[in-house]
Amino acid sequence: MNKSGKTFRPKARVPKGLRDSSAGMVRAEARMIARIREVYERYGFDPLETSAFEYADALGKFLPDEDRPNEGVFAFQDDDEQWLALRYDLTAPLARYVAENYESLPKPFRRYQTGPVWRNEKPGPGRFRQFTQFDADTVAAPGVAADAEMCMMGADCLEALGIARGQYRIRVNNRKILDGLLETIGVEAGAVHGTVLRAIDKYDRLGRRGVELLLGAGRKDESGDFTRGAGLSDEQAAKVLDYVESGVEATQTNRTDVLEGWARVVGETVVGREGIAELAEMDALFTAAGYGTDRIEFNSWIVRGLGYYTGPVFESDLLLETKDEKGNPVRFGSVGSGGRYDGLVERFRGAKVPATGFSIGVSRLQAALELLGRLDVDDVTPPVVVLTLDANRMADYQAMVSELRQAGIRAEMYLGGSGMRAQMKYADRRGSPVTVIEGEDERAQGVVTLKDLILGAEMSKEIEDNAEWREGQPAQISIPRGELVAQVKAMLARHHPHQA
Amino acid sequence: MNKSGKTFRPKARVPKGLRDSSAGMVRAEARMIARIREVYERYGFDPLETSAFEYADALGKFLPDEDRPNEGVFAFQDDDEQWLALRYDLTAPLARYVAENYESLPKPFRRYQTGPVWRNEKPGPGRFRQFTQFDADTVAAPGVAADAEMCMMGADCLEALGIARGQYRIRVNNRKILDGLLETIGVEAGAVHGTVLRAIDKYDRLGRRGVELLLGAGRKDESGDFTRGAGLSDEQAAKVLDYVESGVEATQTNRTDVLEGWARVVGETVVGREGIAELAEMDALFTAAGYGTDRIEFNSWIVRGLGYYTGPVFESDLLLETKDEKGNPVRFGSVGSGGRYDGLVERFRGAKVPATGFSIGVSRLQAALELLGRLDVDDVTPPVVVLTLDANRMADYQAMVSELRQAGIRAEMYLGGSGMRAQMKYADRRGSPVTVIEGEDERAQGVVTLKDLILGAEMSKEIEDNAEWREGQPAQISIPRGELVAQVKAMLARHHPHQA
Repeated sequence: MNKSGKTFRPKARVPKGLRDSSAGMVRAEARMIARIREVYERYGFDPLETSAFEYADALGKFLPDEDRPNEGVFAFQDDDEQWLALRYDLTAPLARYVAENYESLPKPFRRYQTGPVWRNEKPGPGRFRQFTQFDADTVAAPGVAADAEMCMMGADCLEALGIARGQYRIRVNNRKILDGLLETIGVEAGAVHGTVLRAIDKYDRLGRRGVELLLGAGRKDESGDFTRGAGLSDEQAAKVLDYVESGVEATQTNRTDVLEGWARVVGETVVGREGIAELAEMDALFTAAGYGTDRIEFNSWIVRGLGYYTGPVFESDLLLETKDEKGNPVRFGSVGSGGRYDGLVERFRGAKVPATGFSIGVSRLQAALELLGRLDVDDVTPPVVVLTLDANRMADYQAMVSELRQAGIRAEMYLGGSGMRAQMKYADRRGSPVTVIEGEDERAQGVVTLKDLILGAEMSKEIEDNAEWREGQPAQISIPRGELVAQVKAMLARHHPHQA
Repeated sequence: MNKSGKTFRPKARVPKGLRDSSAGMVRAEARMIARIREVYERYGFDPLETSAFEYADALGKFLPDEDRPNEGVFAFQDDDEQWLALRYDLTAPLARYVAENYESLPKPFRRYQTGPVWRNEKPGPGRFRQFTQFDADTVAAPGVAADAEMCMMGADCLEALGIARGQYRIRVNNRKILDGLLETIGVEAGAVHGTVLRAIDKYDRLGRRGVELLLGAGRKDESGDFTRGAGLSDEQAAKVLDYVESGVEATQTNRTDVLEGWARVVGETVVGREGIAELAEMDALFTAAGYGTDRIEFNSWIVRGLGYYTGPVFESDLLLETKDEKGNPVRFGSVGSGGRYDGLVERFRGAKVPATGFSIGVSRLQAALELLGRLDVDDVTPPVVVLTLDANRMADYQAMVSELRQAGIRAEMYLGGSGMRAQMKYADRRGSPVTVIEGEDERAQGVVTLKDLILGAEMSKEIEDNAEWREGQPAQISIPRGELVAQVKAMLARHHPHQA
């Protein structure tokens, strides 16, 4: 920190695509996580924590939303030249953990994990390169009862977070039904297969006509960009569209009707029939547990891009709308998703290990709740501030603040170097409910002054109307030093009766 | 996931120096963090969260315990070729944050932050490359009242974590006193300066003779390795040793006595006098708040290697001892530390910004508490397990488990593919308190069987003595299906009376 001449002075800047979280955001996320945890625990899941990075080969080449090999992660080389990469989700580390500890785990193995994940992608508005997920997975569970549980748990989580029934929907489909559909129209696994699935996935956004174009020759969007289509014949495309729309209208009332429609679509294909049977079993479980279509629906356009899903897939969508700053309607996409992935542990072990999981996009959901004005307001009372007006009396102020803290009151003494005015301004900036003042006059009389800043602010707002009320509720009182704790408590109780 | 021939199969392994945390460890850390947070909040600190990595130039070249430039971090290049690095502590990101947002922050700015930090160092037993810290810092606070507060808060945290008074000590020194000492013996800033400080730092471990050698020609350790000494004259070394020992014996009873000894050591040096005055003020604050030498002592051998400390430095040491698996005594070093760093934000802003902070090594403390048997036992009741004995009756089992969950009882249905025996073994592995059994016989009678596994285990242990008690407390009962929730609650209440 050489002061002469050419000192290198780095620019203080948060890295591209990252952000700092303020107190309110940190507390809101912590509350969300606590509520989700409570639901996951009630369902019998136990926590597991893996570290932030893994060997890159263990993470595998699939990114959740893209099929780009080895892109999209932050990777670095260890001193033994092995490549490490920050985790991009919580499923890949789980697969590594299960494969590494397979013999010693109880089976099924049920764990939850929360924490940040990192994506080396182009950041954008509301799109960050670090965000928080909260996953639960059941490994070594072959039946779809495990998948059904994930869907019901997802619904319970959203309700625990204050999203009312009817304001969200868990939407369920089965990759096997999509496979059956494609088999009936003669599309085999490969590039066209993927293009068809991506087209279906866009029904929600583009509607029938948009999907039709994407299934056929292709589609030009509003900006003029052309997306090549799957090149299906009109007849093939019509069948796909019938399928998509069979799981849209009907879902509003009855899951069984949807399955009947889909059964016709998949015809006699083995994989399709299997998919139908699995969803029928899930429907029975939902119904037995009382989860109607107001919570969980079957939905044809749910595809989930991720290559590794092998059976039921599901996502949780907020049905609420809001407007952005410019007044444009904002629709929230999926705030959680999951499905069955019987092949992920196989990468390590060679044998299939049936597994299913659900992941809540905590950061994404938090942003949505904030836009909707549904995020809990910060419920932590800011600290009482003891002013430090005389540098020679710091020990007295320290004694006061210690007494308050010992009584369980959030308190601090002013630790800056400025005078009375700046100190009051600081207390105001912090949102402090009460300041404690002991200046020269007070000390001579053995008293301290308490200032109720909340009341003070209210009074200055309505200076005309409340003269009488003011009489009984003085915003500033002088009290004997010995009554400090009791009087501060009484003053706080005016505003936070349950905390006093 | 090509099954033919040469499929690449990565080895499932946790990266070198990292580890997975089991449910008990995750819960124990969460409880520790909650307790520390409560103390930090009571002192008026608010949370802040920065992301896991920063621009490497913003992290700076100082590692906390080493002065190696640009080593010891995990770094990687962004797509715009800027270098990023995982944070190695929580102070450097704070300095960046404060510099970036200086004008808009309340001053003093008081924040806490917890989370993992990463060190690219050689791992060893109990030495991991990711671990958790929990910091509180006050920025723009020029007076040592802010430092004194850190020390008291450190003591409060350890007690909140169940470490009794007398089993730990907050040890305080001042870099200015060390500077004054070195000035009196004619050692200027530079390599020798550092060597002397490192020698003092080792007094705790090596005793007088070891430090004497390190101050002089050098010292050969038991393994034969030679550490070069500072090359002080005997007279110089004697003065340093006098200083070190003046802050050892006396501290047990009285902080003022230590200061008197140190005042003689630093003589008339300006910096030394300043250091003494600062500690005298801190002593007065400790005393006013009732923190005696059983909690906070002045201690000469506290140096804190970190280049950036500029005033008071402190660490929290556990005084407890235990034995490792081989019966060797284990001493716990510092489980928390901090100090004043007036230059860290200056790197960005050019002007000094006085700051002080305290960092608790959560992972280190957790390991210590675990070795001492002081870590809270896991207090989460494992789930009730509903067996799934008939694949055609899954909806019935689902209804049972849903009822239990709706009543707030932690419960799950068995989701594996095995029979009765394996299901009971699973319940046992999970530590389940109760299993719910509805087989063919039960269903015919409209009943379910509840098995109390905790009682069952106890009974099988003391099969002789408790015949009478067993009569009144059957480990297995048959109940009407309609009484499921009430009877499970009653059974759980036997073992966890406060949870029923």
